Amino acid sequence: MNILKRNNISITGNTESSQTIMFAHGFGCDQNMWRFITPSFEDTHTVITFDYVGFGKSDISAYNFEKYNSLEGYADDILEICQALSLSNITLVCHSVSAMIGTLAAIKKPKLFDSIVMVGPSPRYINTEDYYGGFSEEDIKELLTSLEKNYLGWSSQMAPVIMANSERPELGEELEANFCRTDPKIAEHFAKVTFTSDNRQELAQLKTKALILQCRDDVIAPESVGKYVHEQLANSKFVLLEATGHCPNLSAPEETTKAIKEFINA
Amino acid sequence: MNILKRNNISITGNTESSQTIMFAHGFGCDQNMWRFITPSFEDTHTVITFDYVGFGKSDISAYNFEKYNSLEGYADDILEICQALSLSNITLVCHSVSAMIGTLAAIKKPKLFDSIVMVGPSPRYINTEDYYGGFSEEDIKELLTSLEKNYLGWSSQMAPVIMANSERPELGEELEANFCRTDPKIAEHFAKVTFTSDNRQELAQLKTKALILQCRDDVIAPESVGKYVHEQLANSKFVLLEATGHCPNLSAPEETTKAIKEFINA
Repeated sequence: MNILKRNNISITGNTESSQTIMFAHGFGCDQNMWRFITPSFEDTHTVITFDYVGFGKSDISAYNFEKYNSLEGYADDILEICQALSLSNITLVCHSVSAMIGTLAAIKKPKLFDSIVMVGPSPRYINTEDYYGGFSEEDIKELLTSLEKNYLGWSSQMAPVIMANSERPELGEELEANFCRTDPKIAEHFAKVTFTSDNRQELAQLKTKALILQCRDDVIAPESVGKYVHEQLANSKFVLLEATGHCPNLSAPEETTKAIKEFINA
Repeated sequence: MNILKRNNISITGNTESSQTIMFAHGFGCDQNMWRFITPSFEDTHTVITFDYVGFGKSDISAYNFEKYNSLEGYADDILEICQALSLSNITLVCHSVSAMIGTLAAIKKPKLFDSIVMVGPSPRYINTEDYYGGFSEEDIKELLTSLEKNYLGWSSQMAPVIMANSERPELGEELEANFCRTDPKIAEHFAKVTFTSDNRQELAQLKTKALILQCRDDVIAPESVGKYVHEQLANSKFVLLEATGHCPNLSAPEETTKAIKEFINA
C-alpha cells in the first residue's frame, strides 16, 4: 500500500520549516478546495494537502466500505499520512465533516497536532431533545434517499444551496462539479456516515487548541452549532466570519486565510 | 513545486519502523528496477522509491539542463526528498551512477544516512594515467556520439550488453524498453553528465558506512573499479556477487537482497 498514492498527497511550501500545515477537505470535494488558501502558507510552512480515499485523485481501489463505515477510518488515514511523512507540529485545517475526522485523529495522537482549525464544523447534524444540529431525523432521511435515488440531480440541487453566494454562480457550479466527479456509491456511503454521525462525546475529549471558523447563512453547520463546538472545547477560539455559505475556503479565501494566520501567530 | 510529484515518490513498507530504506535507480531507468528487492524490506523498514526528474513518471517539466548539468543536482533532489518526508536513519541503496549521487548527498548531510549500498558504482568511467575506469576518452566520445545520433538504436544495442545474462533476453529487453521510454534529449544529457563525471575526490570524503556490491562481467563498472571504491572508503565492505552484468537488482534479486540484509543486520 503506497500511502502517497492512496491519498494523492502533495507536499509543497517551505519544507525546511519545522511547522507543518495540513489541509483536509470536506464531503464530495478534494484538495483543490484549498487552492486559494495554501499559497499564503508556502513561505512559512511545509504544506500538505491530500484527497480522502474515494475522492479526487485518490486510489479508489483502496475504498473499503467496512473501514470507511465510520469517520474513524478517515482519521486513521490522516494519522498514517502523518506517520509516513514523519510530520510533527501540525496545524490541521479541516473543512466541514473533516473537523470531526480531525478531532478523532487529534484525540488518538494529541502530540502530533499543535492546533486544529475547524471550518464549518458539526459534531451532529440531527437534532435531539437537548441539542440543535439543524436537521430533523426526517430531513436527513429525505436527504439521503434523494441522494441515493438520483445523485447527479441531488448534486445539482444541493451544491448551490450549500455554497450560497448565488451572485457568483460559478462557486456553486464548482461544488456541483466536485460532487458529480465522485463515485455515487462512495458519495452515498460517505454522506450516510457523515450525516448520521454523532461525535459530541469525542469532541468533549479534544484537548488540542482549536479555532472555529463559522460562516453566516450556512445550511449545513448553523451558527448555533459552531457555538456549541466552541463551548465544548475549553481551549478554543470562535470567529464568526463575514463569509456566507458552507465553503469560505472557496467563497472568501482572504478572510479565511487572515483568520487562520491570526490564530497561528497569536 | 510538489516534491512528491516531481520525483514520483512512493512510500510503502512498515511506516511505523524508525528504519528507512531508500532506493535510487540508475541511468535510463526508474523505481521499477527495484520491484524484486523492495518487498523483502517491507516488514522492517519504511520503503522509499522515486524516479529522478526526467525519468519514469517524474515531472518532466521540472527537468532543468542547468541544474542537472552535474550529479549535484540529483543529490540535492535526494536531500530535498529526505527533508520533505522528514526521513532519518536511512539506508540508501544506489544503482550505478546513483552511487556517486548518493555519495554527494551523504557528504552534504552525513547525519541523515546510516549506510549506503552501492550496486555497481564507478567514480570515474574514463581511464587516466594512474586510474583504470574501463573506458578510454575515445570510447566515451564514441558512446555519446552514437547515443546522440540514434538513441533508440543505441538503446537496442547497448541494453543487452549492459544487462548481460543473454540466456534471459527478457532482461535486456526490459532495460532497452526503459531506455527507450526516456526523452532522448534528457537521456543524452544525463549520459554525458554521467560518463564524463569524476567523483574520486568526493568519494574519498565519504564517511558513511558503505557496502559495495560488485558483479562479474560488468561492462560499465569492472571489478577493479569496485575494488578501487572499496579501497577509498575506510568504512566499507566489498562483496563480489555471483551475478553477472550491471543490473543484479533485476538479474539476481535474491543474491542482491541477501547481501543487503547481511550488511544491514551485521
